[in-house]
Amino acid sequence: MINNTIYLDNNATTKVDNIVVEEMIPFFSELYANPSSLSTQSNQIKKRIADCRKVIGDILNCNSEHIIFTSGGTESNNTVINSLSRESINKVFITSVIEHPSVLNTIKQQEKFGNTYKLLSVSESGIFNLSLLKNIIDKNTCLVSLMHVNNETGVVNNIEEISDLVSFYKKPLHIDAVQSFGKIKIDLSRLNIDFLSISSHKIHGPKGIGAVYVKNIDRFNKLIFEGNQENDHRAGTENVPGIIGFAKSVSMLDNFDFSKKEKLLRNFEKKIIDNIQDVTIASGNAERVYNTSCICFKNIEGESIVNWLNKYNISVSTGSACSSLSLEPSHVLKALKISPCYINGAVRFSINKNTTEDELDFTFEKVKSIVSHLRELSPF
Amino acid sequence: MINNTIYLDNNATTKVDNIVVEEMIPFFSELYANPSSLSTQSNQIKKRIADCRKVIGDILNCNSEHIIFTSGGTESNNTVINSLSRESINKVFITSVIEHPSVLNTIKQQEKFGNTYKLLSVSESGIFNLSLLKNIIDKNTCLVSLMHVNNETGVVNNIEEISDLVSFYKKPLHIDAVQSFGKIKIDLSRLNIDFLSISSHKIHGPKGIGAVYVKNIDRFNKLIFEGNQENDHRAGTENVPGIIGFAKSVSMLDNFDFSKKEKLLRNFEKKIIDNIQDVTIASGNAERVYNTSCICFKNIEGESIVNWLNKYNISVSTGSACSSLSLEPSHVLKALKISPCYINGAVRFSINKNTTEDELDFTFEKVKSIVSHLRELSPF
Repeated sequence: MINNTIYLDNNATTKVDNIVVEEMIPFFSELYANPSSLSTQSNQIKKRIADCRKVIGDILNCNSEHIIFTSGGTESNNTVINSLSRESINKVFITSVIEHPSVLNTIKQQEKFGNTYKLLSVSESGIFNLSLLKNIIDKNTCLVSLMHVNNETGVVNNIEEISDLVSFYKKPLHIDAVQSFGKIKIDLSRLNIDFLSISSHKIHGPKGIGAVYVKNIDRFNKLIFEGNQENDHRAGTENVPGIIGFAKSVSMLDNFDFSKKEKLLRNFEKKIIDNIQDVTIASGNAERVYNTSCICFKNIEGESIVNWLNKYNISVSTGSACSSLSLEPSHVLKALKISPCYINGAVRFSINKNTTEDELDFTFEKVKSIVSHLRELSPF
Repeated sequence: MINNTIYLDNNATTKVDNIVVEEMIPFFSELYANPSSLSTQSNQIKKRIADCRKVIGDILNCNSEHIIFTSGGTESNNTVINSLSRESINKVFITSVIEHPSVLNTIKQQEKFGNTYKLLSVSESGIFNLSLLKNIIDKNTCLVSLMHVNNETGVVNNIEEISDLVSFYKKPLHIDAVQSFGKIKIDLSRLNIDFLSISSHKIHGPKGIGAVYVKNIDRFNKLIFEGNQENDHRAGTENVPGIIGFAKSVSMLDNFDFSKKEKLLRNFEKKIIDNIQDVTIASGNAERVYNTSCICFKNIEGESIVNWLNKYNISVSTGSACSSLSLEPSHVLKALKISPCYINGAVRFSINKNTTEDELDFTFEKVKSIVSHLRELSPF
């Protein structure tokens, strides 16, 4: 419990680890020189940025020279799509119906710029239809962009299979790994991935910093021009404290055993299923990351549950955080063909490495009483 | 003196004020929720972001709804150019020969995308040639992008005159105010400016955050898609600590009297001119911001002076920080037609609100002895 809040909204963002903040602080007011200047301190900072880049390269098992720091996962996704979009027109992007808006809607926008797109459907548990991918990929395909782990359901797609298939057709592949990075090992040396997006604030690092891996880094159209920073791949004075914090949060990922936490969340889920009628898990039996459970409660509004839980200082989301404010039913849950009487009752519980059994027990009790109360009020 | 360093490279970046860091810290590990979620804390944070936006709107005297937070000045400049570039092809951008690379080179890149550009020349002190601007502006002009204060020389251009002229021709005007913001009052209510770029890390705020003012915010093509953040104008989870820190640094600008600091720098300059032969001030007698002095020493390398000053823990730059690493002679000083035997000896001294007379006296003594030493070694 942090500040009396039970924070189960870790797919939206995470608490920055205190040790990460401590690592960042000197870079605001002591080691603050511009890394592009010629001072002794600038050289020290340049070296620290190179070290941070190596931390990211090492965990992904790639050459760190292929890592570009960005302002976050959304900029990383935009960087990739823009790079292909700006290369030529009349190209076809392929993405899936369950992508994050920063991929799905950015690709849809490509129509404005003379390009088109095709959307890959998913199974009822959210697994990509790879036979369909084989059918729609062709010589006009300029990019296949698919997510590793879905932000709303936590469902894991098999990036080995995807990368084998896309590389067979010799087409560029982008993996949005914002929700998987730090939860599932990604070994780029064993995968044919051309672009990979990751973010700091989903893994207890600071907001405002992320990165993109680019395989063919010399054939790459920048999104943000024009300066020598990031080996000339992304202009703008480096967000030094952000880079330091991101690398520190990555260095703390090693060897964390998520299985115990996964068991806690699965027990919580089981108690909900066993004790509350008419609930369904959005992802069915598909493989999921350890921390995510999207539970749909029939005939009640997920938003009401979220608001009631708020009163008990429990933070969760309905659908994705990014679209919570939009009040549209989640495009992901619609794609899974979840029945409308369940879809509006979706609540996402996303734990973190510090979530305790007590927190989940308390949350379960509150969910049970809130659902019971809301159903008493419901006309259905 | 900070950490035993005399930091005179404040046009490259600035120390984050301790009070700014203190303001930011709770937003890493206490108030860390995603502002787009529905929790009580998210609502608090959303409100704080709105307050920060108002701080920026108030100091610029504009409606804060027209302020979009970005990852920095470079992204702000790219956002503006991209917005016009993506609107149509065969358009002509107008900018000047002394712009920051994030404007000048980004506009030059527009040729790749079917657009062209024209470059405005400057006087020998770095003042824009407005008669020429009248001649080159025409119906195909899609944007006039000019800087308020030059980063290398500190020279101030008259944005009232520029805005009157450009608005007479009914063309959009972008002002890159990264180096003037916080040093010169900018009242947007009295100017016909369509876009204005500002940055946090030049005014003792954190790196990785900036903003762009957009007058016609409903007719605007985003650079980074696609989420509801920033009123749907810039996607990506908000860099909350960055926004908080930026606004705090802005709130501390009010009523600071720069005239005493300006006098210190002018005295330093006078001592250099009076005591060292063959020096010239890059900006001639043009109006300058209080903090910048670009001094060219004949027949020696500015880089050698910078390196020697480094040994005495004095940080300065040669040319702009952003281009220090490229060993090309400064495009700005070339545009001012400074003689080649002076251009390579350019050193930029940029002070801040805390710079002391003692620091400048010490720096003067060191500059004097370094120049004397280097000239003894010089073949000229």
